[in-house]
Amino acid sequence: MVLMMKSGAARIPWWLEEFKRQAPDLKVRVWPDVGDKKDVEFAFVWAPDPGDMATYPNLKAIFSMGAGVDHLFKDPDLPNLPITRVVDINMTRRMTEFIVLQVLRHHRQQPAYDALQRESKWQELKQPAADQRTVGMLGMGALGSDAAKKLSGLGFNVVGWSRTKKKVPKVKSYAGAKQFNKFLSLSEILVCLLPLTKETENLLDKDAFAMLPKGASFVNAGRGEQVVDADLIAALDSGHMSHATLDVFRKEPLPADHPYWSNPKVTVMPHVASYTDPRTVVSQVLENMRRARAGEPLLNTVDIKLGY
Amino acid sequence: MVLMMKSGAARIPWWLEEFKRQAPDLKVRVWPDVGDKKDVEFAFVWAPDPGDMATYPNLKAIFSMGAGVDHLFKDPDLPNLPITRVVDINMTRRMTEFIVLQVLRHHRQQPAYDALQRESKWQELKQPAADQRTVGMLGMGALGSDAAKKLSGLGFNVVGWSRTKKKVPKVKSYAGAKQFNKFLSLSEILVCLLPLTKETENLLDKDAFAMLPKGASFVNAGRGEQVVDADLIAALDSGHMSHATLDVFRKEPLPADHPYWSNPKVTVMPHVASYTDPRTVVSQVLENMRRARAGEPLLNTVDIKLGY
Repeated sequence: MVLMMKSGAARIPWWLEEFKRQAPDLKVRVWPDVGDKKDVEFAFVWAPDPGDMATYPNLKAIFSMGAGVDHLFKDPDLPNLPITRVVDINMTRRMTEFIVLQVLRHHRQQPAYDALQRESKWQELKQPAADQRTVGMLGMGALGSDAAKKLSGLGFNVVGWSRTKKKVPKVKSYAGAKQFNKFLSLSEILVCLLPLTKETENLLDKDAFAMLPKGASFVNAGRGEQVVDADLIAALDSGHMSHATLDVFRKEPLPADHPYWSNPKVTVMPHVASYTDPRTVVSQVLENMRRARAGEPLLNTVDIKLGY
Repeated sequence: MVLMMKSGAARIPWWLEEFKRQAPDLKVRVWPDVGDKKDVEFAFVWAPDPGDMATYPNLKAIFSMGAGVDHLFKDPDLPNLPITRVVDINMTRRMTEFIVLQVLRHHRQQPAYDALQRESKWQELKQPAADQRTVGMLGMGALGSDAAKKLSGLGFNVVGWSRTKKKVPKVKSYAGAKQFNKFLSLSEILVCLLPLTKETENLLDKDAFAMLPKGASFVNAGRGEQVVDADLIAALDSGHMSHATLDVFRKEPLPADHPYWSNPKVTVMPHVASYTDPRTVVSQVLENMRRARAGEPLLNTVDIKLGY
């Protein structure tokens, strides 16, 4: 009756604290110190090593630690078990915080002011109003729609792009490959919140960046695999684009020698745009453990064929 | 028939461009090159030199370049003429942008992440949710109320403090000297938007900072004279406070040798929190020139006794 857990190092104590608070008797074993694998009934994981999930003979279910599950489907040996993902209204709120923060940072030129401060230089920069800026939201699901509404409420023009047309008040919707270039040509601050699929992999390449208006900036809270890194760096270095805030990368942690770290036009964030609230997630994990043992259907299961 | 103008150097071309667009025949003379002072009928100014306004014999009205007029009342020789200030709904929107940006920067620990990036260090910081943070808004007029609403919409707890009680949905109102300490004791992110008056000068001193919860941060978009700088620096250096974003200072531009510039816990902004939109302001100035010549009452005049 053991839950194994694999998490980024920093979060381990935060999760353990919350499990102790909500289920003091639960045995939680932190990967790789999982003890006898036969004892492990449930896995609560982020980015398990490929093949690892198949080594627990009595595993009943796999709980993704985040809203995304692509980190699980990278494993060719993933056992055929119920898989759940985190559905947490706080995740939307937290993602919106991040998007609003980063769009405002770009809009109000905070990185340029930070650089001026390092030179003790008092200098005002010309500042367009929000109604003179268009934010382009790539991905208009629950996360993208909520962020779009908040940005529109702050006065920005907002346009959205998604697989199919969406109706969100005050947000002009573009859809599909045919309207992609038109959407990009309007996006002075481009925000990516797309899920990673075959269609979105490498979507943001040289051609896509070239379609953006001159001086455009970019916020990536989708997935690193959607961006051709060399093309983004070239667009920033040439001056066509002004700034990028990246929260996701092809390889995480971002290697210490990656050129993004020292590029003055890049803000590197360690995959913290949204984050699962330990309070909510732990209670969902405990409820799903109860349901699995009682033979009841689990909450927030993932459709393995769709991949989300 | 001349308008004299005194503005911060950076904005001069932005103003001239807008006057040229809206009133191509108007003669605008930029201080100190004002030519024959007898020609000057109107003054459109920010922080004129004390005594200067009294030297134009045919001056009919003084237009403040901002919402505030304390920069005019510092002049003991200010002539007894109609004085107008800027009332621009875009000023509220822009101030709200700034407050939301800075509160989110503090809440989401952007300065700490910026510092980690400079070390190429991938490290996640523990992050409370917005509903676990209380923002304290000092000043609940048009600016404070609008920012408070937007912050509440992002999920923050918001409390407000003002001279008299205010009713803003979801914002608990504290008023007057008696409730000041209670208000401070709740304010994890303190925002100042107060006007400068005798009552608010030096309001934020050692005692006030000591009342804030440990780890609190501070955003000043009010006036520099409201803060005892040495007390703020002491509270930051001791670790009692975590960060301050300052947009206003006792002396502006902030002298290059001021300790704020290099303090890693201070973000220095060159008085750009809100800013008058040249489109709106120039049209108001032109309308008030027309009214003054026609003997009609001016728009947005200031009550000299109240000081605002």
